[in-house]
Amino acid sequence: MTTTFANTSAPPYYAVIFTSVKRDDHGYDETSRRMYELASKRPGFLGVESARGDDGLGITVSYWISLEAIAGWKQDIEHLEAQRLGRDKWYSGYVTRIAKIERAYDFIAK
Amino acid sequence: MTTTFANTSAPPYYAVIFTSVKRDDHGYDETSRRMYELASKRPGFLGVESARGDDGLGITVSYWISLEAIAGWKQDIEHLEAQRLGRDKWYSGYVTRIAKIERAYDFIAK
Repeated sequence: MTTTFANTSAPPYYAVIFTSVKRDDHGYDETSRRMYELASKRPGFLGVESARGDDGLGITVSYWISLEAIAGWKQDIEHLEAQRLGRDKWYSGYVTRIAKIERAYDFIAK
Repeated sequence: MTTTFANTSAPPYYAVIFTSVKRDDHGYDETSRRMYELASKRPGFLGVESARGDDGLGITVSYWISLEAIAGWKQDIEHLEAQRLGRDKWYSGYVTRIAKIERAYDFIAK
């Protein structure tokens, strides 16, 4: 995925906060890369940030221009199959939260 | 911090999405634990989820009952000092986003 900050515009915009615990890795990285490739081409995609610690807990936040853009991505045919694999294989559990970003501020060290 | 899902209630509620890149570790873990201890005692605190990958990018999402609860925590005296240390020492950069959680759903493998 990415290792940088998502270059989002001024609020308001929307986010999908996906917190997961992995139980299996088989085929995960390949699908993860493909999902990033697909998502980043969709209309309304603003960016994504992702981190997973050694304890297996991961957080991926994707940013979108609208709820409609999020709903469209959720129904993408390859993404639907990845979601099914996630439930059947990769994740012992996850929480998905849909959020409206109301304010944002950043800091870059000099 | 925690390695489990935040046990949040039904939406709406609020989140602080804090994405950061670390540049220095000195004293970080101790302060991180102390901030969790303080935040979890505050009125309106719902939970926190946190992950940091080997590339140094970390995402911490704390959940709160209201924007007022978030504003109160931001102004906590020990937290203000931790924020200053974050800028002066620990982080090469960060983005803080304040969000309203509108919908949430979860999955637990059988």
